[in-house]
Amino acid sequence: MRHHYEALPRNDANFVPLSPLSFITRTADLFPDRTAVIYGARRYTWAESYARMRQLASALAAAGLGLGDTVSIIAANTPEIFESHFGVPMAGCVLNTINTRLEAETISYILENGDCRLLIVDTAFAPAVVPALEALPAEVRAKIQIVDIRDPAMGDLPPIGDIDYEAFIAAGDPEFAWSMPADEWQALALGYTSGTSGRPKGVVYHHRGAYLMSMGTASGWQLPQHPTYMYIVPMFHCNGWCHAWTMTMMAGTIVLIRDISAEAMFGAIAEHQVTHFGGAPIVLSLLVNAPESLRPKLDYKVKALTAGAPPPAAILQKMAEMDFEVMQVYGLTETYGHVTQCVWRGEWDDLTFEEQAELQSWQGVAFPMFEGAAVMNTDTGEMVPRDGETQGEIVLRGNSVMKGYYKDEAATSAALRDGWFFSGDAAVWHANGYIQIKDRLKDVIISGGENISSVEVEGYLYRHPAVAAAAVVAKPDEKWGEVPCAFVELKAGESLEAAEFLDWCRGQMAGFKRPKHVVFGDLPKTSTGKIQKFVLRQRVKELD
Amino acid sequence: MRHHYEALPRNDANFVPLSPLSFITRTADLFPDRTAVIYGARRYTWAESYARMRQLASALAAAGLGLGDTVSIIAANTPEIFESHFGVPMAGCVLNTINTRLEAETISYILENGDCRLLIVDTAFAPAVVPALEALPAEVRAKIQIVDIRDPAMGDLPPIGDIDYEAFIAAGDPEFAWSMPADEWQALALGYTSGTSGRPKGVVYHHRGAYLMSMGTASGWQLPQHPTYMYIVPMFHCNGWCHAWTMTMMAGTIVLIRDISAEAMFGAIAEHQVTHFGGAPIVLSLLVNAPESLRPKLDYKVKALTAGAPPPAAILQKMAEMDFEVMQVYGLTETYGHVTQCVWRGEWDDLTFEEQAELQSWQGVAFPMFEGAAVMNTDTGEMVPRDGETQGEIVLRGNSVMKGYYKDEAATSAALRDGWFFSGDAAVWHANGYIQIKDRLKDVIISGGENISSVEVEGYLYRHPAVAAAAVVAKPDEKWGEVPCAFVELKAGESLEAAEFLDWCRGQMAGFKRPKHVVFGDLPKTSTGKIQKFVLRQRVKELD
Repeated sequence: MRHHYEALPRNDANFVPLSPLSFITRTADLFPDRTAVIYGARRYTWAESYARMRQLASALAAAGLGLGDTVSIIAANTPEIFESHFGVPMAGCVLNTINTRLEAETISYILENGDCRLLIVDTAFAPAVVPALEALPAEVRAKIQIVDIRDPAMGDLPPIGDIDYEAFIAAGDPEFAWSMPADEWQALALGYTSGTSGRPKGVVYHHRGAYLMSMGTASGWQLPQHPTYMYIVPMFHCNGWCHAWTMTMMAGTIVLIRDISAEAMFGAIAEHQVTHFGGAPIVLSLLVNAPESLRPKLDYKVKALTAGAPPPAAILQKMAEMDFEVMQVYGLTETYGHVTQCVWRGEWDDLTFEEQAELQSWQGVAFPMFEGAAVMNTDTGEMVPRDGETQGEIVLRGNSVMKGYYKDEAATSAALRDGWFFSGDAAVWHANGYIQIKDRLKDVIISGGENISSVEVEGYLYRHPAVAAAAVVAKPDEKWGEVPCAFVELKAGESLEAAEFLDWCRGQMAGFKRPKHVVFGDLPKTSTGKIQKFVLRQRVKELD
Repeated sequence: MRHHYEALPRNDANFVPLSPLSFITRTADLFPDRTAVIYGARRYTWAESYARMRQLASALAAAGLGLGDTVSIIAANTPEIFESHFGVPMAGCVLNTINTRLEAETISYILENGDCRLLIVDTAFAPAVVPALEALPAEVRAKIQIVDIRDPAMGDLPPIGDIDYEAFIAAGDPEFAWSMPADEWQALALGYTSGTSGRPKGVVYHHRGAYLMSMGTASGWQLPQHPTYMYIVPMFHCNGWCHAWTMTMMAGTIVLIRDISAEAMFGAIAEHQVTHFGGAPIVLSLLVNAPESLRPKLDYKVKALTAGAPPPAAILQKMAEMDFEVMQVYGLTETYGHVTQCVWRGEWDDLTFEEQAELQSWQGVAFPMFEGAAVMNTDTGEMVPRDGETQGEIVLRGNSVMKGYYKDEAATSAALRDGWFFSGDAAVWHANGYIQIKDRLKDVIISGGENISSVEVEGYLYRHPAVAAAAVVAKPDEKWGEVPCAFVELKAGESLEAAEFLDWCRGQMAGFKRPKHVVFGDLPKTSTGKIQKFVLRQRVKELD
């Protein structure tokens, strides 16, 4: 009877908050001597990594940080950012990874908006970080302690902060008695996404979601015990698709490289017998277009996930020829990274390569841990028919959807409503349940795997004294997938050279956000004066 | 800042109660045409299975059942019990699987204690079930609706209940709009365990635990997409190790066989290309001892889990020779089945076969979804040293520990305390973190994978008019692992033949519980009159 069943409460034996921190406890205990991390000549076993994570947590606590304090990090994929994925939440803090390619102005904004209390920063990023810190209001700056990562691979660079990472953690206790989160809904990470407005929005992850992402990735990608994983995806990007946590769960070996070149990647694959990696299609493109002499001879299949744009058929074919098995996945910063996967279906085995490549370019179906990936007619709130033709918006639901946007209730309730997260991606739904993206509803440009807000870029362009109006749309690009293309209406009497204007952009914004093309002329507008971007999206196809 | 992070609440987009019911939604949607279940000539696709589950849920609702009502089932591993694992909780009900080998008296007890509202019963089990129903108090019996499974494979048996399963679900709606549980802590299943006292205890599972069991099994056993799984473990036993849910998550094909003989198992493996199965060591023993002519020629490795007793070295060796890969797992009814696994370690590769077999007989380490498996000195509450010598009790903690015992607060708080579930198994802890069982603290005998309470069996023996005192202990047995052995002290002036006494037992209790040996004579007792079972356990080793 119901009340008898309900009479049995949770207790510490049968209820443990879901947290990726459980993974490091288990793996460090069971495989202390296995290699956890390889970065050039640096190697740490799981016992060593775990000790360093506990030292970091201990040092953060000693620095006065605790539950709900934000620790920001601006770093390449080096051991320190991996350790931070555990050490920071072990101290109860929230890990705020910041895109290393951002301009100073946005870094400043994130540090202030995110309530940063301590910044771990690779000194190689001083050119943007130093002015970002200088631009902060004095009372904000005063609250931020700074810990430097000084990577010898980058030469002997001057310090930015007060103490080196190694010295900072050396003061910490390698046996620090950290606590699991009391509540699995506790914030774990904060990552800023370009979104659609000019200012980036802070996406908050919780422990439960990251735990389930790892569980679902392991079964959805069918990870073996002890994968050797090459970390290409920047850990600042959706916490590197949560793979820092997932690979820890599987007691893998994480191979870190700083230089994302074909030579470095193939070299790492050959040297360490890499079995798995993930990366944007541009990464796959680097590999398949590299000289054949660089390719390692392997007696096993390397498995790769790719996301950010559908992988072109030619790349899939060449990857298959190299014996690399590629699966496309799809997700957003708001969904902790990938939540749909283009699961290979047995009935595809006998299709032609072209047919297979077409099917593999679909974004697919929900991962095992995800509850719903559907395509909605947002006018009616009904799902579109599964006819492969009717467009709607991709809506997503599950335990790895963000808690919400930090300090932005309005944006949170706009994105999470009626039981769904609204992705802003337009798609069709196929009869077999696979989703295929057709267009983007949000003004986002995806270039080399990075999201760029066109509205943000327009904001920069308006700073030019000659600009009357500006609109930025995506231009397809063979290498980067998409690049920003600017349409600019000049003030009466002004004139500008394209090259001169593009050069001016250089001082205004991060390199990856800079328009690679500019077209001067009147902008198409609605009767109410709204710029008609769909017209520009048509027009951009006619360029070249 | 903490309050900003905490300000982001759960909603229907980012929080979905964890439930194995999610798996059927996804799998039936994505792989409707793949074969879900094979039982002899019966085959159902995932679309068909899902429709039948919804019909069952709909029929239960129409029969007046809902949230927190108990639906009992006494069935062999046929499609109906598989469907019940989803259809029953889809109606909000709790699935109470009952061991088909129990005697009428215990079945009666379970139906009454478990508040059964509807019983699904395979008519092959009429010999125990009919008297069990007759023995129920009239007001209890009046509340129980009965649905018959009539398996043509068992011949044309008379009905027990009011309606056949097929007719019952035929009235249900195959598109029934069932609901997910509102709370992942909601009761999902009720399974009785022999425990240490005379009466079995009802172990309650919740949706969250079963979901995580499936996730953890998939990554711990590294299940591929679409495994072909032969269901040997009875689904009444810890819900068949939760594999009904796990295989649904992986969109596998479930091969059901009723006859657990080497011929039937090898036949199923060959016919359906079975890739995975689980079973007690006695099942492995059946396979390796079968005539070689029965063995199928396979071009792949079959993976097997085994539990209930450490697999003997000879069996492991023969399994390896057949190219079957066996992993021992350990758990209890209270932990949803397996929660530790003897994970193979790379450093074992170069050991001798004997050394490997010894290591594989250890119970191992926590599965990825499980939080803690340790060995405690229960006098001090401290964990024992990891020296492979010091004995303590296995204690377990994690999200797949039961809610508690149904209607038994005292037993619940005795079993779940100080943050641990106390297993009753004595073990040592090795330096590598692996647990190895050394003895049993509880009076439980494990015979052919089934737990037998020695106290319960003693209760039956005391019914014999000539018995003054009786004690039952485990006797090692080559085929069954253990069998019950009775030590009986007769009343003054009485005398009995062993054969006569063992024959009398036949009418008293289920076959698997019956002592296979009896020794007459005075029982060793303490000064306070307590029977010294440890003396009898010594003595039993000297028999034969």
